[in-house]
Amino acid sequence: MGFVIKNITVVSYNDELEILENVNVAVDGEKIAYLGTEMPDLSGYDVINGEGKTLLPGLVNAHTHTPMTLLRSYADDMALHTWLYEHIFKIEAKMDSEDIYWGSQLAMLEMIAGGTTCFADMYYFMDRVAEATAQSGLKALLSRGLINGAVLDDYSNDERLSEAIDLFKNWNGAADGRIRIAFSPHAVYTCSPQYIAAIRDAAQKLGAYIHTHVDETVKEHNDCVQQYGKTPVRHLYDIGLFDVPTIAAHCVHVTDRDMDRMKQKNVSFIHNPGSNLKLASGIAPVPDALKKGINVALGTDGASSNNNLNMWEEMSLAALIHKGKSLDPTAVKAEEAFKMATVNGAEALGFHDTGRIKEGYYADMIIVNISKPHYLPSHKLTSNLAYSAQAADVETVFVNGRMLYDKGDYKTLDREKIIYNVNRVCSRLF
Amino acid sequence: MGFVIKNITVVSYNDELEILENVNVAVDGEKIAYLGTEMPDLSGYDVINGEGKTLLPGLVNAHTHTPMTLLRSYADDMALHTWLYEHIFKIEAKMDSEDIYWGSQLAMLEMIAGGTTCFADMYYFMDRVAEATAQSGLKALLSRGLINGAVLDDYSNDERLSEAIDLFKNWNGAADGRIRIAFSPHAVYTCSPQYIAAIRDAAQKLGAYIHTHVDETVKEHNDCVQQYGKTPVRHLYDIGLFDVPTIAAHCVHVTDRDMDRMKQKNVSFIHNPGSNLKLASGIAPVPDALKKGINVALGTDGASSNNNLNMWEEMSLAALIHKGKSLDPTAVKAEEAFKMATVNGAEALGFHDTGRIKEGYYADMIIVNISKPHYLPSHKLTSNLAYSAQAADVETVFVNGRMLYDKGDYKTLDREKIIYNVNRVCSRLF
Repeated sequence: MGFVIKNITVVSYNDELEILENVNVAVDGEKIAYLGTEMPDLSGYDVINGEGKTLLPGLVNAHTHTPMTLLRSYADDMALHTWLYEHIFKIEAKMDSEDIYWGSQLAMLEMIAGGTTCFADMYYFMDRVAEATAQSGLKALLSRGLINGAVLDDYSNDERLSEAIDLFKNWNGAADGRIRIAFSPHAVYTCSPQYIAAIRDAAQKLGAYIHTHVDETVKEHNDCVQQYGKTPVRHLYDIGLFDVPTIAAHCVHVTDRDMDRMKQKNVSFIHNPGSNLKLASGIAPVPDALKKGINVALGTDGASSNNNLNMWEEMSLAALIHKGKSLDPTAVKAEEAFKMATVNGAEALGFHDTGRIKEGYYADMIIVNISKPHYLPSHKLTSNLAYSAQAADVETVFVNGRMLYDKGDYKTLDREKIIYNVNRVCSRLF
Repeated sequence: MGFVIKNITVVSYNDELEILENVNVAVDGEKIAYLGTEMPDLSGYDVINGEGKTLLPGLVNAHTHTPMTLLRSYADDMALHTWLYEHIFKIEAKMDSEDIYWGSQLAMLEMIAGGTTCFADMYYFMDRVAEATAQSGLKALLSRGLINGAVLDDYSNDERLSEAIDLFKNWNGAADGRIRIAFSPHAVYTCSPQYIAAIRDAAQKLGAYIHTHVDETVKEHNDCVQQYGKTPVRHLYDIGLFDVPTIAAHCVHVTDRDMDRMKQKNVSFIHNPGSNLKLASGIAPVPDALKKGINVALGTDGASSNNNLNMWEEMSLAALIHKGKSLDPTAVKAEEAFKMATVNGAEALGFHDTGRIKEGYYADMIIVNISKPHYLPSHKLTSNLAYSAQAADVETVFVNGRMLYDKGDYKTLDREKIIYNVNRVCSRLF
């Protein structure tokens, strides 16, 4: 009926971060039933020994493109235009729904092993990603990336938007609520204002979230100012996109006024430090966003621009690069980076009662081995997690109380079969 | 008498990087005896199966302070002055030779598990670090950090310099040549010009290397310009320090002219991206240094400003942050970052026939498991190593042909004993 983790160190949030040592955590069904120093009645419960370990909320990867694992390390260290047009787009044009399925399953193997329990994904053939997510046991906000070329007046019959609406109807709330569907206008430079408005209307009607790219590059920023006379954030704000709950990936070049509008509309700022560095997009103004009280979460972006889906690296980068950029060693503290990767991510994606180790919350939790040399001596756990941890320190992963992974063993996915099929589809694609 | 690793993928250097698939590598005694597709006569050899794995040169941590593991995560996210004077210096003042010994052994546990085979260390009670290094099987360039306060004329009886000379006499060339001793004027702001000159003379007389900190912060740079009318590099150049082979840690604020002088004197530029970010020192001009042909290597700095000794993170940071800073996605390519962490590190530290997988070279090598999801599909190994690898992917570590570590087991160090003693000395220190 459930399980108890004994004598573990828990990193939890109420109003602020708390570290609880030597506590017991009981899970009944999908949720955390007890957290404290008492030992619950153990009859009928499996018992896990937590000594030398810590129990954390599962990490939330708030912006990725899971099937792009197929393009990992395929094209690197080149100008953005060359990378995108001569390499990435050429392969993507050849990808079919089966490729997408296996690519997303490979991503799920990697995410699970590294302690990611929830993710926001934007790509195409998303029904296959939903199928893979249902099998994996992970929690996800999935969306079909929507791009239009021509500016038309009537989007009522737009094929891609219809596909996105069908995705919502078929999958929103599926897999015991683990899957939710968002709507994704890809970006201001790939969607006309009319198209973005049509997507907003569809999302609003269905009560869905928006997941979009915003102000990733200097070129996007300047082109938008030139074409529309305003920044990407202001442009989307004026269209009314932010009247729908929105997660905005990148936000590298947003202005101070832009951030005020994001805060006003409760738009989540999804920081992707690894991708922004690797693609030379720049360093997002995260310290300013935090000062304004904007909800900042973290994402890896796709594996082709990172080149992994390792949220520990994003946490570490988030805690490091803003100090180096601003020459302020107090910028983005360890606790803030950790909160971005957990609490804030769950909040951004709109999964309620998720992202904290707390009674009544869904048991999306990871056990991390903190007895390794790089965690010693044990001065400060949150600093060790933000600055010193590795993804491989994750031993056990639960989502909705179900064990997905334990010490290298996948409980829901067939590792060998996935790797076999990834290699098979890649030999056709490349 | 030796061993053979069969069917492995080797990353090697001759004039440039080479990836050799499905080769066999034989080690006789301390050195690599064969590398190629032939299978050597296996009688008397142990055989290691290399399928699904890669054999790399051991990583070289070219600037660290190993005993500072004791201060890992003790004080973070605060202004440099507060960090140093109110926290770090207070504890360091209490450290005795036993603390240093166990702190350095903890560092060695961590370095070995992450594939570091060679390091440059600067601290005090360095005879105990030498003792620990000898036991560990690692290779190291060790030095006593030298600081003077007053400006004196005569350093012939300087106590610390005498200690450094004794360290050289007792330990240089020890442990079958695995240990070499350098001389370390700490920095331009902690050593008078006369003291630096005396250290230079001692090093020159003994044929030793110099290991120093150079131009780490804006304050150091500006103070030096104010006090001496020149930059730290120019100041050291004029003293003649660089007439001795020198490794210069940090170099965050060096000028274009400084780098010309470093190149002229063949000074190695030791880049410490993690520490420079965390302490908000800034981002060193590594792309310019590379363009000038300066030998750039990588270091973690001490664990109190990083907070680990994970060279994979430094490699990844080196490949990422210069792209983000310069907005040039071709800055510091994966191969360059990998070379900095291996070949260039060995070159900087002056360990000859080290840092490459090559016949006649010392067998300082690591086996990395590249069958994990974050290495798949296998498009480009060097990109995967620079951008996606984790320290925990290291399975086996050899130095001078001796196995130091294999799948979690330490062959030379007693993990439990070290951790016990680290906790014991910390309970006194903190």
